[in-house]
Amino acid sequence: MTESLSPELEAVVARAAAAAPAFAATAPESRARAIVAVADALEAHKNDLVQIGMRETGLTEVRLTGEVTRTAVQLRLFADTLVDGGYLDARIDPADTAFALGVRPDIRRTHLPVGPVINFSASNFPFAFSVMGGDSAAILAAGCPLIVKAHSGHPELSDATAAVATAALHTAGMPEGTFQLIHGREAGVAVLQDRRIKAGAFTGSIAVGRLLADIAASRPAPIPFYGELGSVNPVFITADAVTERASEIATGFLTSVSGSAGQLCTKPGFVFVPAGTGLPAAIQEATGELAEHRLLDPRIARSFDERRTEILAAPGVTALIPGGIRFDTDGHGWATPTVVAVSLDDFRANAAALVEEAFGPLSIIVETPADTDLAALMPEFYEGNLTGTLHHSTAEATGTTANAPELRALVAALAQQVGRVLFNGWSTGVAVTPAQQHGGPWPATTNDASTSVGTAAISRFMRPVAYQNAPQAFLPDALQDTNPAGIPQHISPAGESQSWGARWRSEA
Amino acid sequence: MTESLSPELEAVVARAAAAAPAFAATAPESRARAIVAVADALEAHKNDLVQIGMRETGLTEVRLTGEVTRTAVQLRLFADTLVDGGYLDARIDPADTAFALGVRPDIRRTHLPVGPVINFSASNFPFAFSVMGGDSAAILAAGCPLIVKAHSGHPELSDATAAVATAALHTAGMPEGTFQLIHGREAGVAVLQDRRIKAGAFTGSIAVGRLLADIAASRPAPIPFYGELGSVNPVFITADAVTERASEIATGFLTSVSGSAGQLCTKPGFVFVPAGTGLPAAIQEATGELAEHRLLDPRIARSFDERRTEILAAPGVTALIPGGIRFDTDGHGWATPTVVAVSLDDFRANAAALVEEAFGPLSIIVETPADTDLAALMPEFYEGNLTGTLHHSTAEATGTTANAPELRALVAALAQQVGRVLFNGWSTGVAVTPAQQHGGPWPATTNDASTSVGTAAISRFMRPVAYQNAPQAFLPDALQDTNPAGIPQHISPAGESQSWGARWRSEA
Repeated sequence: MTESLSPELEAVVARAAAAAPAFAATAPESRARAIVAVADALEAHKNDLVQIGMRETGLTEVRLTGEVTRTAVQLRLFADTLVDGGYLDARIDPADTAFALGVRPDIRRTHLPVGPVINFSASNFPFAFSVMGGDSAAILAAGCPLIVKAHSGHPELSDATAAVATAALHTAGMPEGTFQLIHGREAGVAVLQDRRIKAGAFTGSIAVGRLLADIAASRPAPIPFYGELGSVNPVFITADAVTERASEIATGFLTSVSGSAGQLCTKPGFVFVPAGTGLPAAIQEATGELAEHRLLDPRIARSFDERRTEILAAPGVTALIPGGIRFDTDGHGWATPTVVAVSLDDFRANAAALVEEAFGPLSIIVETPADTDLAALMPEFYEGNLTGTLHHSTAEATGTTANAPELRALVAALAQQVGRVLFNGWSTGVAVTPAQQHGGPWPATTNDASTSVGTAAISRFMRPVAYQNAPQAFLPDALQDTNPAGIPQHISPAGESQSWGARWRSEA
Repeated sequence: MTESLSPELEAVVARAAAAAPAFAATAPESRARAIVAVADALEAHKNDLVQIGMRETGLTEVRLTGEVTRTAVQLRLFADTLVDGGYLDARIDPADTAFALGVRPDIRRTHLPVGPVINFSASNFPFAFSVMGGDSAAILAAGCPLIVKAHSGHPELSDATAAVATAALHTAGMPEGTFQLIHGREAGVAVLQDRRIKAGAFTGSIAVGRLLADIAASRPAPIPFYGELGSVNPVFITADAVTERASEIATGFLTSVSGSAGQLCTKPGFVFVPAGTGLPAAIQEATGELAEHRLLDPRIARSFDERRTEILAAPGVTALIPGGIRFDTDGHGWATPTVVAVSLDDFRANAAALVEEAFGPLSIIVETPADTDLAALMPEFYEGNLTGTLHHSTAEATGTTANAPELRALVAALAQQVGRVLFNGWSTGVAVTPAQQHGGPWPATTNDASTSVGTAAISRFMRPVAYQNAPQAFLPDALQDTNPAGIPQHISPAGESQSWGARWRSEA
């Protein structure tokens, strides 16, 4: 369990541990400027980086160029988060000599970085969830030294990105050891086990995520592990929605399923629609020219080929869009989207073959009888998802139609099962905003109380610390009376503690 | 792992699962009134309950009566938290058609209860961290059905408290299955393993906490487990502080060590003080009349007796206050406080015997040479603690004395190692306030990103959910434009997303 590290890895972890106090002590504004410098540097090197990425991942130039922009914008959003200061959740409870339970001391609370963190980067976002992607941005913004385990699918791009970021962080004056890159799963596991590492982040498969989460939990001193794993992202479409805009729904659906060759954790995997609507025909009509795309790597391609074959062979499954996959001489798989339809009865009867995520451009339309309890449907098959979606009609949006109670029950049930509930939209394309929630119950993530997209992700790498009756000279900036950085401080009104509870009792 | 439950436990878990949607759907104000009703009922039955508690736990009438008050106040604080609504962290990011990464949808986020939770109650707080204690208050406030596993040290009190609470919750209109009590560790483990249970809470020993945390982490669907375990709560006292108020410090220290017979997770276990001060003599002078107290149960008494004997026998250890423990014919142990002194060299040389928590009225004064690096001291022995304390002089509070850099380094190091840093105070007696943080790195707790005391504890039993482009009719109250309950909504200013990052880039 706690075998010694190789000399190279020992040096990496020792550098990260040595950097921790100095990096934690940097002013948020300094970290913000350093992060913006990384964003600027990535954009300055965009052309070179995209070329490497195209060769290693098979993703298109348009997609990868857009991903660099997204990565840079994401980094800048975290910079703004740092300057805003709300992420510190600074709370000040003034002393109260007349509190119901005796003298209440002055207690002030803020959040501090947890220490060195390892981030296992993703295959399917070689920029936005790789070396300087969302998790890395959150870790650096929090003030935690970062060790990234490069994904084996784009090692050269990882090195090139790391070189750009390292130079930018150095120029910005961040301590040596603030950011380091390592390669190899064994190296990543060894670092995750080291007692100096205080948290882990991961984006990838359920199987690997489970392995790493178990390692993190079974250490002599367990640490939090934030894994973003698998999801089938159920979509529910009402009959009236199909009547109102079948063609629009069909087009949006196919764009969402085929984008990035379906290799997105938010790809809609199941679509539940009442039997007898025009949706299947509309999907077939909307097909148009669905381009062939290379899948990320041969392993993913073989796995997709197997899942696709298994699904097509399941009893009752009919191919609305057959799609296909062919392999080139390098072992790479080139796929066009597959869409199948199946009745709910056949879906239930063949759940073992159908419910597991098919990572690639494939989706399953499940046609439901009129009396189906939609709210109870997903937990029957697959409990935790990143997203759940309802497509409704204009009239249904008012919440006054005859089926409104059923729709409300469905939305409430989805909210229990997912991190994000969408209406009349598609789950792919996750906006990076303060309110975003990208995380759902197991197996969607290993920790559904946090998000891996959006600026709230920073809180994963911080922990609260309270100071009791501290002299001003020993308080962090965030908690001082003078509030030098002008951040939001939540100060309990003086004397508020007197009335706590009394109001309620007197009314009873 | 997932063996079937006994019929009785199956009924308990099934009732909790069935209650979950209805309880989650109760308005926060309804839950607040129900929680206040429990508080009122506990106070109405205070005399009877305290008599049972005295017999079962050996704690004094004064202590237990005060604990009922604390428990009732604690419940009412959670009621106020519910009505305030800030705990929902409601965030609204309006749609933005001109966002840097394309059209940004309307995204709104709030927090929902996780579902049924099991709470393993504590031995040392038969009210405040038992059946209707802090964890239970947080779980019920969050809107999660609660199953309490009674502590074997006070089974009759647990039943009596449960009867009072059940009647109050029923009268307040909460769903059947909102709260249930079970007995026996095997039953608790079986419930913790059930897939319908979504989180666990625990207050107790490191060994049992580790066992339960491992079970929670190794379930087919892992769940969060919030254990509050062991802590030795280091105290650092400067030479000038001793010169200024040796007698006051000695008296405060003895009160803190001997209160509740030392059976508190925040008892100061180690006191580091420069060699040669008058503190040891002051402690011996302050002894006065230290009463004998019964320890909670025979197992704790035997364990304390063993630890005390081991510590007294360690080389270099001298007894400032010998104290003692005697056993009565029922096997109960009656203890008076023990305080020992040891040099840092001898403490280091005998760390194996000395550093483990001694749960009971015992503390160790460690006398440090003048050149000791205080900031590096604790991690050498025991990394995670609930609290760390600095006693300083009036002049040192200004942060301008010659030793200010060392003191700042010590405070920064403590903040990395504990959940609460105290100044010129004692760690026992944890105030229940919004800013409180009662949780520290392993082994102090299993999850140092959360607190088990204070109203922030409610967030342990909720998880965030985002709604994208949701019609008003399908949004939770907390996220509706009309904000019917008038709770705090954090609304991003329209158009703010335009400037994100741009400001920083232009200044670079």
